[in-house]
Amino acid sequence: MRTQGKHYRTIWEVPNQPGIVQVIDQGKLPHAFNTIDLISVEDFRRAIADMQIRGAGLIGATAAYGMVAATRMALASDAPFSFIQEVAETLMRTRPTAVNLAWAVRQQLDALAACASRLEWAGVALQIARRIADGDAQACRRIGELTLPLIQKIAEAKNGAPVNILTHCNAGWLAFVDYGTATAGIYAAHEAGVPVHVWVDETRPRNQGASLTAWELAEQGIPHHLIADNMGGHLMQHGMVDLVIVGADRVTRRGDAANKIGTYLKALAAKDNNIPFYVALPSSTFDLSMDDGIAEIPVEERGAEEVREMTGVLKDGTLASVRICPAGTPACNYGFDVTPARLITGLICELGICDPTESAIRMLLTVTQ
Amino acid sequence: MRTQGKHYRTIWEVPNQPGIVQVIDQGKLPHAFNTIDLISVEDFRRAIADMQIRGAGLIGATAAYGMVAATRMALASDAPFSFIQEVAETLMRTRPTAVNLAWAVRQQLDALAACASRLEWAGVALQIARRIADGDAQACRRIGELTLPLIQKIAEAKNGAPVNILTHCNAGWLAFVDYGTATAGIYAAHEAGVPVHVWVDETRPRNQGASLTAWELAEQGIPHHLIADNMGGHLMQHGMVDLVIVGADRVTRRGDAANKIGTYLKALAAKDNNIPFYVALPSSTFDLSMDDGIAEIPVEERGAEEVREMTGVLKDGTLASVRICPAGTPACNYGFDVTPARLITGLICELGICDPTESAIRMLLTVTQ
Repeated sequence: MRTQGKHYRTIWEVPNQPGIVQVIDQGKLPHAFNTIDLISVEDFRRAIADMQIRGAGLIGATAAYGMVAATRMALASDAPFSFIQEVAETLMRTRPTAVNLAWAVRQQLDALAACASRLEWAGVALQIARRIADGDAQACRRIGELTLPLIQKIAEAKNGAPVNILTHCNAGWLAFVDYGTATAGIYAAHEAGVPVHVWVDETRPRNQGASLTAWELAEQGIPHHLIADNMGGHLMQHGMVDLVIVGADRVTRRGDAANKIGTYLKALAAKDNNIPFYVALPSSTFDLSMDDGIAEIPVEERGAEEVREMTGVLKDGTLASVRICPAGTPACNYGFDVTPARLITGLICELGICDPTESAIRMLLTVTQ
Repeated sequence: MRTQGKHYRTIWEVPNQPGIVQVIDQGKLPHAFNTIDLISVEDFRRAIADMQIRGAGLIGATAAYGMVAATRMALASDAPFSFIQEVAETLMRTRPTAVNLAWAVRQQLDALAACASRLEWAGVALQIARRIADGDAQACRRIGELTLPLIQKIAEAKNGAPVNILTHCNAGWLAFVDYGTATAGIYAAHEAGVPVHVWVDETRPRNQGASLTAWELAEQGIPHHLIADNMGGHLMQHGMVDLVIVGADRVTRRGDAANKIGTYLKALAAKDNNIPFYVALPSSTFDLSMDDGIAEIPVEERGAEEVREMTGVLKDGTLASVRICPAGTPACNYGFDVTPARLITGLICELGICDPTESAIRMLLTVTQ
């Protein structure tokens, strides 16, 4: 998307340095726009684990380039294939909930294992990383095209009043390589002249809504209001939300969707108020090996400090963290929750829109692949 | 409750200065324990409007003493009864959602209007303020006694494992004159040796859970964990919550309950997971003049800065606010939402526990009054 006066993806190769990439430092947004060089295997691991980059699609693309770094290191140090496998394990452990991470790393491992000689490793890994990154951007663009008619239909019924869309966390272009999933339709609607207004859940504890989604929407000129995560139910009760669109980190074959903690509460409120609730995802986010999402999807627990503290800027513009509770307060920090399929109106992926049922998901993935 | 090594209420008269009160400055908790003198009518107005004190019961008691200040000022300046009525209007406008405020001010107005002479004003107002404050503390104590068996019953079924209770915002002793409503049963259980553990919703945007409830529970030695407001649904899905108890700012005759924004989302999750969801309130919080809470209860909108910023302490202990979103982000700040009666298991007030239905509420209020 356009930002800072030019077109950016969230991850791009340094010219003439194949496999060495730069990313936007999302830990600093919205208060500063910096980029980070990812060169070594450790650079990639840290970028994912410390959430300098985050979001299902971008984690996948970054991990894919991390595997390119692994081949480079293996070749430079004469290390065996098992070294690459160890790097793969390390990368996969960084963020357990997002399936795209494991999906991207496994694609690399399978392709590298199939190489006739280690001479091919670097070239093959680079090709796959590029395919994953480009594929992610294309999938998101297509998700936007598929979401647009849903928004247009609501807009027609509203006679020109803006369509109020609530979203949770950041499933925007910053979470993917470009366009985003939950936001792709919003960007497409805005471009098509359909009036939209977005309710942005701040998304505690890490505030990806307040810091990333609000920033993204402002950069694209899309009307929006930031709200506390507690407010969506009230807005829905009072007819102030027409549509909810969120992303996902993993969707099981029955259609249960893991997404940022708090998504389930918004799905309940949408159901209670007859508001359509869509989950937008690239098809790589489906995990057909799992059925019951609540029982089976591993949910990442992060450090208590993320709950006990808030980061932002002081009046003078310097970054700072404040502790919001007594010094000794213990806190608990689950990163994701699972929204059961029964609360989801539809799943939007680049292959089409389908009901959250096993048969519909399997048909979508089979027919079109 | 005991704190700082001695017994405190949240509001108390200065010895030998009838009608002049001190309160705990809740805007500074948990980072500093200060008290504020409330002497002039403006002191009282500001304390309520700026949330130096907050919580349904404490707002009512403070407003009652504010009316004492109004009589004092009227007498000193030879002002007519209409002056007292104007102060009453001013106080009632500060926080529109909490019914206890209007209830306390109206009690004062009715009694003052019935006085045979202005000579009686100060004495009558003081008597009523004391009755309201003492009555609030006694009601909360009784709510604790009535809640205790509910917790004991769950404890028996858990064979000694702690009863996990989730609460939202602060309906603790800081929100009332003493004991609290949602917390009263927790304190009673702890005193009775029943093992309890509390999940404390931080309660954005003003973090009354993180700053007040966490502080209260720690002071009383009750095990607890702070969580982001987004996490309760996940905990309920995974059997980690046995009981939800919240307070209320107004409950209609059909049992719809206005409480801090976000309460409705927890009620939906409790219903979805078959977890009992109780609302604890003094009987003064019932508003029988209203029926449909979602349509009728006025919901306070507060300043956008409360959403855009977070206040806490920096590493060096100094208080600071940080902005968590881009500089230009607009925000929206509804203070309360309404939980429909159908999501509420029972209403606990000092007169007994009843179903959230008009007939049950009317019977409870009539039979026992």
